[in-house]
Amino acid sequence: MSTSNIAMIGLGVMGKSLALNLLDQGFNVTGFDISDTHRDGAEQEAGVLTKQAAKGQFVKATNLSQVLDSLCKPRVIALSVPAGAIVESVIDDLLEVGLEQDDIVIDTGNSLWTDTEAREQKYQGKLRFFSTAVSGGEVGARTGPALMASGDRQAWNYVQPMWEAIAAKVDNKGLPVGQFEQGEPCAAYLGPAGAGHYVKMVHNGIEYADMQLICEVYHFMSEVLGMSAQEIGQVFEKWNQGVLNSYLMEISAEILQTSDPITSKPFVEVVLDKAGQKGTGLWTAVNSLQQGAPAPTIAQAVFARAQSSQKSTRVMGASQLKTHVQPSSGINKQATIAELHEALYCAKLSVYAQGFDLMKTMSEKEQWELDFAHIAKIWRAGCIIRAVFLQDITAAYQVAPHLENLLFAQRFVEEVHNRSFGWRATVANSALTGVPMPAISSALSYFDSLRCEVLPANLLQAQRDYFGAHSYSRIDEEEANKYHITWSAGERTQISV
Amino acid sequence: MSTSNIAMIGLGVMGKSLALNLLDQGFNVTGFDISDTHRDGAEQEAGVLTKQAAKGQFVKATNLSQVLDSLCKPRVIALSVPAGAIVESVIDDLLEVGLEQDDIVIDTGNSLWTDTEAREQKYQGKLRFFSTAVSGGEVGARTGPALMASGDRQAWNYVQPMWEAIAAKVDNKGLPVGQFEQGEPCAAYLGPAGAGHYVKMVHNGIEYADMQLICEVYHFMSEVLGMSAQEIGQVFEKWNQGVLNSYLMEISAEILQTSDPITSKPFVEVVLDKAGQKGTGLWTAVNSLQQGAPAPTIAQAVFARAQSSQKSTRVMGASQLKTHVQPSSGINKQATIAELHEALYCAKLSVYAQGFDLMKTMSEKEQWELDFAHIAKIWRAGCIIRAVFLQDITAAYQVAPHLENLLFAQRFVEEVHNRSFGWRATVANSALTGVPMPAISSALSYFDSLRCEVLPANLLQAQRDYFGAHSYSRIDEEEANKYHITWSAGERTQISV
Repeated sequence: MSTSNIAMIGLGVMGKSLALNLLDQGFNVTGFDISDTHRDGAEQEAGVLTKQAAKGQFVKATNLSQVLDSLCKPRVIALSVPAGAIVESVIDDLLEVGLEQDDIVIDTGNSLWTDTEAREQKYQGKLRFFSTAVSGGEVGARTGPALMASGDRQAWNYVQPMWEAIAAKVDNKGLPVGQFEQGEPCAAYLGPAGAGHYVKMVHNGIEYADMQLICEVYHFMSEVLGMSAQEIGQVFEKWNQGVLNSYLMEISAEILQTSDPITSKPFVEVVLDKAGQKGTGLWTAVNSLQQGAPAPTIAQAVFARAQSSQKSTRVMGASQLKTHVQPSSGINKQATIAELHEALYCAKLSVYAQGFDLMKTMSEKEQWELDFAHIAKIWRAGCIIRAVFLQDITAAYQVAPHLENLLFAQRFVEEVHNRSFGWRATVANSALTGVPMPAISSALSYFDSLRCEVLPANLLQAQRDYFGAHSYSRIDEEEANKYHITWSAGERTQISV
Repeated sequence: MSTSNIAMIGLGVMGKSLALNLLDQGFNVTGFDISDTHRDGAEQEAGVLTKQAAKGQFVKATNLSQVLDSLCKPRVIALSVPAGAIVESVIDDLLEVGLEQDDIVIDTGNSLWTDTEAREQKYQGKLRFFSTAVSGGEVGARTGPALMASGDRQAWNYVQPMWEAIAAKVDNKGLPVGQFEQGEPCAAYLGPAGAGHYVKMVHNGIEYADMQLICEVYHFMSEVLGMSAQEIGQVFEKWNQGVLNSYLMEISAEILQTSDPITSKPFVEVVLDKAGQKGTGLWTAVNSLQQGAPAPTIAQAVFARAQSSQKSTRVMGASQLKTHVQPSSGINKQATIAELHEALYCAKLSVYAQGFDLMKTMSEKEQWELDFAHIAKIWRAGCIIRAVFLQDITAAYQVAPHLENLLFAQRFVEEVHNRSFGWRATVANSALTGVPMPAISSALSYFDSLRCEVLPANLLQAQRDYFGAHSYSRIDEEEANKYHITWSAGERTQISV
């Protein structure tokens, strides 16, 4: 009975949620997991679901042969397994039990994009390897994620109807609509193999920075303005009604107003302040360093997590380090809150500008021809960084697809101009009061460096020429002409190198 | 006639300088390079040198067999070739022409430390692979570099007398002495294979940040205080007499007071402000990200170089971006210069603290047992980051070899305490006037984060638990106990995971 439209291998949080979402949309789904618990859990939830009309049918497979037998051809098999070697081991097992050349295997995990590229190469001619990065966490996967697909274009034709059906959707104002409503789907084919996972990686890098920015504002409000978690949550809730409207702002407001079920204290105050990470933010920062496409604020967000994890060192630091700080007594609370709002908006825009610049650099290098309006579009709903603001980014790239930098879009030039003093005041207050804002201040440095026709790298190049004979170019000649000064000689002359 | 003590393969800037230094110290040296020009150039300079008494003899080899024949056994062969595959190709060629198991091959290039580890493995039993990272640029290599050695301990016994003879030396106050004077040599065996190149890599990461810090101060003095290059050079010259005394400060002062030989303008003003890089700073930043041992200011220095290289984008930014900045008219020049001095000192210390923390992390992970007093000692002279200040770092680690963080050393706690307001005022002024200081401000954020017993990573962990069910630990329980809140349920409960 080969009647399933798709199989899901791996029924953990994400795989199960995607499978249930597919059933919801009327597709027949085969589920398999090596864990009995996961398999049975999914079967049970699918059972409840598929009693309703217009839902797809669920087939529980107990081995990979059953998976293959259950699918109509060409078979479409989605993997939701941990990134790394296990992806290939599952595919190799599938080949052994009879996967065919026209069958499609889709990696929906958080794989490193270079692994995805290598896998497409490796399986060429044996199967159609396709990738789809999924953002939105558990809830997103269940009711509408953002789906970033890449690889074999023909495979996309088979997958597209399913992916568009289960993806998050937005109305014609760019606002998210419900799971069963009509709208523009947040699912797209982004380019050749690797492109989808790459774009998702940068999405996560932006997410790291976005989270860190919010945390820094919370920290400042708490430490300098003496606000309670509840009060900060209320401010965030208000902010979430305006230009800062976003999923992360929404959940932060909710979290801050949540009490710990055990102690009834504000929940955040019982949570250990050591941040974990799964690696995608780190990959983005490393890629940015390696490509010379600066995303310093994403790196700062990764470093902030690392520094948070050095808790015992910080406890020592808190008792041993001494410093002069400006007392917070002279600070006007309402004015400062307004400045923090401007700082958060501007810093967030700076982070997005960094992320899109990084994607632009890689797209040119890898010849992916990424469509940035399209990317901003599918990030408008479903994914973790979804925000009203992405509608503006979409519009900016629709007007100017080859925008040199997102900060140059006319609408953002004006927004930042109007808000920049609050941003500057916030960073200055952070420095003076000693409550750190590594990400917000790095976002400002990025913006201000971008405004500098001349950066002090002229002195730096001169230093490099002095101690290492690394040579320099001149502003009054072609850059290709390289020179060295005879620094150690009595009379200095310029020699061509 | 096997009378050479050592052979140098690769007679470029560094190899030739090391060879001449060895001759100066009375060692017989064989030189080989695939380039006739390099080979003949070295022969000519060696010829001039060895006419003097007490110098070693130079043998020019024209192939690798001649290299081997010229050396007494066990043969010691130093490579000064570009980092990468060429290192192995030369070694493989040497094995082909008769290199023996007891012979020692020393990689003196800027190899990535993991390559060095892999090479020691690869050549085990075939030869003694040893590594020595060299810092000091051309002049250092010629008259006294800092030498960071690692690998086979027995090989070190053979190499030690030569390395100690050619290394930079310091007197009993920690100050550099002349090439032929007595003193404590800046050469040391640091640990197993890889350790030397690793320590040199971190040295270069610190160097990147140190250079960037100086550039930021120059930029601010020029843009905000309206000072000429000449005037800034004079201030730096004065600073170089005090706690900021260092090679980089010295050459910066000299560069800023140098005129362009072509136009007679200040030299820096004709140099193109696009910074190049060879990769070691980038490797340090990547390693820091990957190890979770935060060195954010080193990363910011790498990003600053990347942003400088986006010159055409910056030219567009300078004309298109709009912002409000505080006018510089109200700033008191002399007071601000004094603040910049404090900022530079404190930021520099923060950078060193980051670099040493990174080395501590890796040393524990790789079981290298790095001796930080020893490392600070050999950085006191010869290398690019040499500074008076390293004598204080040496002393700090001598008093407390297992110091949790360099900033916790009593002498530095007081120094930073006394200077911290100038640091804060500088970062605030940078933000308000719009002249970016990505490294100086990141160094302050690192310091201030280290003072935080509680960082806002509590909110971040709560966000991660909310959208990704990533779980959290509690401050009132063992960290190993992980929990999740049922966020989407009507009533929220805490479940153990």
